[in-house]
Amino acid sequence: MSLDELCATVGAADVVIDPARMAAYQFDWARVPGAGMPCAVVRPRTAAQVQAAVRWAASHGIPVVPRGAGTGLAGGASAIEGGLTISLEKMTAIKIDPATRTAVVEPGALNAAVKRAAAAEGLWYPPDPSSFEICSIGGNIATNAGGLCCVKYGVTTDYVLGLDVVLADGRLITLGGKRIKDVAGLSLMKLFVGSEGTLGIVTRVILRLLPEPPPASTLVAVFPTARAAAEAVVEMGRTIRASLVEFMDGRAINIVEDYTAMGLDRSAGGLLVIQSDAPGAACAQEMQRIEAVCLAVGCSEVYRTDDPQEGEAFLSARRAFFPASERLGSLLIEDVGVPVPTLPDLLDGISEIAARHDTDIPVVAHAGDGNTHPNLIFDGADPAARERAEAAFEEIMQLAIDLGGTITGEHGVGRAKIGALGAQLGPDVMEVTRAIKAALDPQGILNPGSGI
Amino acid sequence: MSLDELCATVGAADVVIDPARMAAYQFDWARVPGAGMPCAVVRPRTAAQVQAAVRWAASHGIPVVPRGAGTGLAGGASAIEGGLTISLEKMTAIKIDPATRTAVVEPGALNAAVKRAAAAEGLWYPPDPSSFEICSIGGNIATNAGGLCCVKYGVTTDYVLGLDVVLADGRLITLGGKRIKDVAGLSLMKLFVGSEGTLGIVTRVILRLLPEPPPASTLVAVFPTARAAAEAVVEMGRTIRASLVEFMDGRAINIVEDYTAMGLDRSAGGLLVIQSDAPGAACAQEMQRIEAVCLAVGCSEVYRTDDPQEGEAFLSARRAFFPASERLGSLLIEDVGVPVPTLPDLLDGISEIAARHDTDIPVVAHAGDGNTHPNLIFDGADPAARERAEAAFEEIMQLAIDLGGTITGEHGVGRAKIGALGAQLGPDVMEVTRAIKAALDPQGILNPGSGI
Repeated sequence: MSLDELCATVGAADVVIDPARMAAYQFDWARVPGAGMPCAVVRPRTAAQVQAAVRWAASHGIPVVPRGAGTGLAGGASAIEGGLTISLEKMTAIKIDPATRTAVVEPGALNAAVKRAAAAEGLWYPPDPSSFEICSIGGNIATNAGGLCCVKYGVTTDYVLGLDVVLADGRLITLGGKRIKDVAGLSLMKLFVGSEGTLGIVTRVILRLLPEPPPASTLVAVFPTARAAAEAVVEMGRTIRASLVEFMDGRAINIVEDYTAMGLDRSAGGLLVIQSDAPGAACAQEMQRIEAVCLAVGCSEVYRTDDPQEGEAFLSARRAFFPASERLGSLLIEDVGVPVPTLPDLLDGISEIAARHDTDIPVVAHAGDGNTHPNLIFDGADPAARERAEAAFEEIMQLAIDLGGTITGEHGVGRAKIGALGAQLGPDVMEVTRAIKAALDPQGILNPGSGI
Repeated sequence: MSLDELCATVGAADVVIDPARMAAYQFDWARVPGAGMPCAVVRPRTAAQVQAAVRWAASHGIPVVPRGAGTGLAGGASAIEGGLTISLEKMTAIKIDPATRTAVVEPGALNAAVKRAAAAEGLWYPPDPSSFEICSIGGNIATNAGGLCCVKYGVTTDYVLGLDVVLADGRLITLGGKRIKDVAGLSLMKLFVGSEGTLGIVTRVILRLLPEPPPASTLVAVFPTARAAAEAVVEMGRTIRASLVEFMDGRAINIVEDYTAMGLDRSAGGLLVIQSDAPGAACAQEMQRIEAVCLAVGCSEVYRTDDPQEGEAFLSARRAFFPASERLGSLLIEDVGVPVPTLPDLLDGISEIAARHDTDIPVVAHAGDGNTHPNLIFDGADPAARERAEAAFEEIMQLAIDLGGTITGEHGVGRAKIGALGAQLGPDVMEVTRAIKAALDPQGILNPGSGI
């Protein structure tokens, strides 16, 4: 192995080998323990440089970790000791094509930048992870990211029309294009979406855009218990297509109120923020039906607004949860999802696990999808507290599996959950997974130890 | 190889070996020449019988052709001489779960039966191939079928939440479930959708359902030229989310008028049938915008109705095209798709190809998606006419590829287009395809010679 060779093939200006600078590339937001120091960080500006870097790594059998904006919550971009990290941060071009309602995007472009570029043409890129201001499209593709609006508008994979991918041997393939429907050959594009950097490195994406939706109305409903709020979600899911259905439990409400003092009801057991973007008068009708469901399951207070700014203010309580909880200690961020009707049982179960393991576990959720984020908060300096939190983390995943759910709804498996993947998928699906991995990356150099 | 062994393991009552009865399983609607006589047709009632049949075939190295309702338009279900055809026609159970808004469906259930079962619970299964009354969900999964409403509501893969699949070695795996979001592991489920029976045989599907949409309004617009109609489609695609955008060219209009005498304008060069299902007053607004676009590009006549029955009557002209053209001679049904802005050029190019090869090629299209069905009509008894039609068929596929499109938008590759797949995908994507095929079906027994 020769770093000189790497610098020569990629261009020395885009290779970082200074350990002090490389330290910034060791972790993502999950801060999964055990990240190593890479041998180099390549920051390509072109797909050809990605190919050159991968070819160099392949020729030396060096593991490759692709990295977007580093906001991942499962450790999928954690550096490997002696491995090559390829950071796509410099590949940020965005080109909107209004005629085809598509965006051609490089992987380092931020989700918010794509949204802004689309909006400038009266168009809309729906997927909206909570981190949309700071996460990259490449990371969104790698994890098949979700978000708040996906209860009505779907997740990242639903908007991917085309991908350029650098394979493990350095070849570049182009999948899909600006055509909307295409069933020629295997759905390889869909296979690469959500593959967490284990099958290839995406260097260009064609995203489908929609016309901008009508302005949304917002409803906030306060419930005496978390279970009652969840039951409202289940009930409205049968017949209503809300464009956003977010949940906070009582503990999450209090953490946000401690942080923001915005006047939330500290006695509430659960809170829902719900939006409808049905056009015109249909919006008010949908809001009335949503309100009726909330009242029927016993909500103690409900408030509605058609003012988008006021609506965003309510949503800001939900968005404040992550910074509000981050300052309380170390975090393990869960991402379990269940069939919507089992949401009440999942919340009850998490509450029981929190009590039994004496761990603070506030819960927020993209409730309309059954996708929850129990955040385990603990004193990172206390090994016993960490052990309890880790045990609770594992139990919550098993609970979700037992309820017919998943260990991860949108964050990905990464390194944080790789040990639990087999429990969800079972040995036969794991074997199929390994067979496909071996077919596309026989050396196993792409993000080993993560994702699958 | 022993058919006695097959009968013993599957159950003789569900095995057909009489050649006279097996003849009904030799072709699908594409009637691609060269179908053989299978050694047996298994008609399983359970997934366990599918497993047993596949294990028997695997142990003898016998090719397996899965078959749904036999309405495929690419020869994907054509029987192989001496192969085993597995017809899923008896596995037709449908169970609607309103709480999760899902349907658990066996592959032989007809698309229309799923729609009806969902409607009985106030729910809706959107994908609607033109053949929805007679095509099976298993076939829809195999081809990732589209239809008329997918311009707004997406294609089959967008509604698949779970699959049970029998692999090439007879193992049964379960992918996904009733959870809406799930990113754990590779997107294997999406890989199996559209794989045309080459990677496994689906024995159970979990489909996502939506609440029933509002009633649609319908607009019919008549244009002097096909190109003008296509330009209207391009223009409205930038800003309007119609729920249906169907096209017929002048030749297709005349063929339907010959058949139905419904009073269509025989002098028209193109006709659009467009629907909006926006709720309440928004629908009329959307219709007005659509009408304005049609008038702006020079449509000669436009008619609107809010009466769903009258709307369906207009759509019946479009639906009558297949039976109307079928009686005129032998058919080669194209399914090419292009980026929507290139639709006018595609239509012009098809017209030029038709003239040059002296072949009758009326065109209908799911125009809002850029997915067209040029139907090549020729005298099957005239070898020269067949040769000209086949040459035109190939040229139309190449034209679509040259315009950034696909050789198949919704019918699949099957045996009809397998020779053209490489021209679209290129050698590297073909190699990745073969690597995945080899990983999942090392013996190559699943639908060889078709799909990929």
